[in-house]
Amino acid sequence: MEIEAVDLFYLSMPEVTDEVDGSQDALLARVSGGGFSGWGECEASPLTSIANFVCPKSHGAAHPVSQSVLGQEVNSPRDIYRVSNEVREKSQTILQTPHTFSGIEIALWDLLGKHLEEPVYRMLGFEKTYPKIPYASQLFGTTPEETFEKAKLSIETGYRAVKFGWGEFGIDLTEDQKHIEAAREGLGKDCKLMVDVGSVWKDDLKEASSRLDLLEKADVQWLEEPFFTDSFSTYKGLSQSTKVPLAGGEGCHNTSMAKNMIDYCGLGFIQIDSGIIGGIGSAKEVADYAATRDVQFVNHTFTSHLALASSLLPYCGYENFIFCEYPVQLKSLAWDITYDHIKLNSEGEVEIPDKPGLGMEVDVESIRSYLCDVTIDIDGKELYKTPSL
Amino acid sequence: MEIEAVDLFYLSMPEVTDEVDGSQDALLARVSGGGFSGWGECEASPLTSIANFVCPKSHGAAHPVSQSVLGQEVNSPRDIYRVSNEVREKSQTILQTPHTFSGIEIALWDLLGKHLEEPVYRMLGFEKTYPKIPYASQLFGTTPEETFEKAKLSIETGYRAVKFGWGEFGIDLTEDQKHIEAAREGLGKDCKLMVDVGSVWKDDLKEASSRLDLLEKADVQWLEEPFFTDSFSTYKGLSQSTKVPLAGGEGCHNTSMAKNMIDYCGLGFIQIDSGIIGGIGSAKEVADYAATRDVQFVNHTFTSHLALASSLLPYCGYENFIFCEYPVQLKSLAWDITYDHIKLNSEGEVEIPDKPGLGMEVDVESIRSYLCDVTIDIDGKELYKTPSL
Repeated sequence: MEIEAVDLFYLSMPEVTDEVDGSQDALLARVSGGGFSGWGECEASPLTSIANFVCPKSHGAAHPVSQSVLGQEVNSPRDIYRVSNEVREKSQTILQTPHTFSGIEIALWDLLGKHLEEPVYRMLGFEKTYPKIPYASQLFGTTPEETFEKAKLSIETGYRAVKFGWGEFGIDLTEDQKHIEAAREGLGKDCKLMVDVGSVWKDDLKEASSRLDLLEKADVQWLEEPFFTDSFSTYKGLSQSTKVPLAGGEGCHNTSMAKNMIDYCGLGFIQIDSGIIGGIGSAKEVADYAATRDVQFVNHTFTSHLALASSLLPYCGYENFIFCEYPVQLKSLAWDITYDHIKLNSEGEVEIPDKPGLGMEVDVESIRSYLCDVTIDIDGKELYKTPSL
Repeated sequence: MEIEAVDLFYLSMPEVTDEVDGSQDALLARVSGGGFSGWGECEASPLTSIANFVCPKSHGAAHPVSQSVLGQEVNSPRDIYRVSNEVREKSQTILQTPHTFSGIEIALWDLLGKHLEEPVYRMLGFEKTYPKIPYASQLFGTTPEETFEKAKLSIETGYRAVKFGWGEFGIDLTEDQKHIEAAREGLGKDCKLMVDVGSVWKDDLKEASSRLDLLEKADVQWLEEPFFTDSFSTYKGLSQSTKVPLAGGEGCHNTSMAKNMIDYCGLGFIQIDSGIIGGIGSAKEVADYAATRDVQFVNHTFTSHLALASSLLPYCGYENFIFCEYPVQLKSLAWDITYDHIKLNSEGEVEIPDKPGLGMEVDVESIRSYLCDVTIDIDGKELYKTPSL
């Protein structure tokens, strides 16, 4: 089938705060062809990626992303890989490109799956899928007491693993200790506890090292993003001085970056977001690579269940990759994007839906109320106008 | 002084072709404060970066770049580093950010230099500057004959080093051989010959290896960008099987990426563009790092002489970094951006001007004719409109 249209939609909550909560806005991609529509979500700054999609070309290696997708013939997974390569080549010098293309690539898988009546996991070469242990992914409380309450609530809801992140954590050692102790106390001793510090120590090994003691005492499952994605030698240094496994990789915007992190950072877990790295195909390539190393693949997801499905797919067929990031603090926008949601089964585990495409249905009526009306003009010519939903 | 305004200007040639010639459009940044204006050029997709500059925030780590620059107090180099850190932190999850901020950071140095009546090289801590050997940087001819003519012309113009790149090179081994032989023949045996293949072999060691013989025979000074920037192990593999030094790094959009390339790729030359990596301060950090390793720092520049000055500054005080990329095929737009140009001295070498700031004066009247009129609206509110020059 021919890709007849690619539409990007900028959705936003009425108010966006300074919380590091990525579910406050969204950029959805819809690709249409053969009488079907496929959907995907970019983990991207919506306006920046819309501009990247429609911008005039700057030269032969700086084309707008739209150029390499519209009008393409897509009849098999190979065609999606071909489109991905073309985008990477023709738009390679525009830095934003992978963020923009990720959601479009996901939508291509969804479209192709609907067209062929195949679930995406099969098209990726998996025969079956394995359930994952979801960890409740949430921000630290503003006080240790609040962190304790959040931890308790997670246990009561049935989670066997919980991750706290961001907030003020990482800045004051005494406060950090209180939050970690509160989290562990709230969870009890059997629940897995992950800690995500959102690159707070930038490139500073010493700051990170001073927290190792308290993380080890609290039996933390992993320490996530102690440093910026590219701080390889600092990661490696930290990994060599602790038994707490390190996790990172959400910032990887191509497969080589992720493989480099696996090769050079001493990671225990590589965390990949299909909505950032260039789509499901790229994420799957990283999962395959991790499987040949002593590193576990985990999804990164902090937005809608459409994004959750697309980040679960690349490793759903690997039995020994056992965890799944599961967002529990979604703003209504992110929850409302889909009719269906990936819920915990009776074992407290999650599974991807066994339906054609991504297996998630987008709730068009519901997202209409979050839609932003964007126009971009150059020299009186309209380059972009929010399309009809 | 306070940063009172930051303005971005999208300039374009009337027609932009598929040649990989980055001088066909430009994004200029002008920062104003204390009665002065500073100028810088981003090596970026103009519209994408304008959107990145004005976009509504998505969350606490996805602010528009403008947010961290406007209203800042800038009275010393330390203040510029502080602003850079703030941008990296507050806009870290928007991939386009370093491309957008690079030109603004350069403009901040220019502004501060004018304010303090100091050339930027002094503010960077260099006592004096050393002239560099420019290599004439140009695209391969469409035929071997044309490559030969270009080579001959470069020699006649007085160049002691010449680089050919892109075009069709890297695709057909027989054609490649003809082009390299034509280049060497046109240059004679004493002129340095560099070859830039623009990541044509992506991640394919075999394709690259099959060219080593002809590159060695032509006594090539370096082979540039055989692979994508992040293909570390492939770079390393190639470096171990040839005596031709490898060069790369223009795609580095932060200092850690560049340091990683130095540490893991087996490079002989690290090529940094101040307009990509986050500005002059970031590029200088890489030059300092290269100086502690057995790697030479070289600028990457394929656009205006404003960009050339800003990419020369980070290493102008290092005597043993001897080469300078010098664009010789500029479109009129890129040439017209400045009144002054960095010309070859009587030794055939180039030096940065010893004047306050970048030492280059922007030709406002001249660039007016290339200015694109952009408007971006969201929900009826104007986010960006091309400012007055």
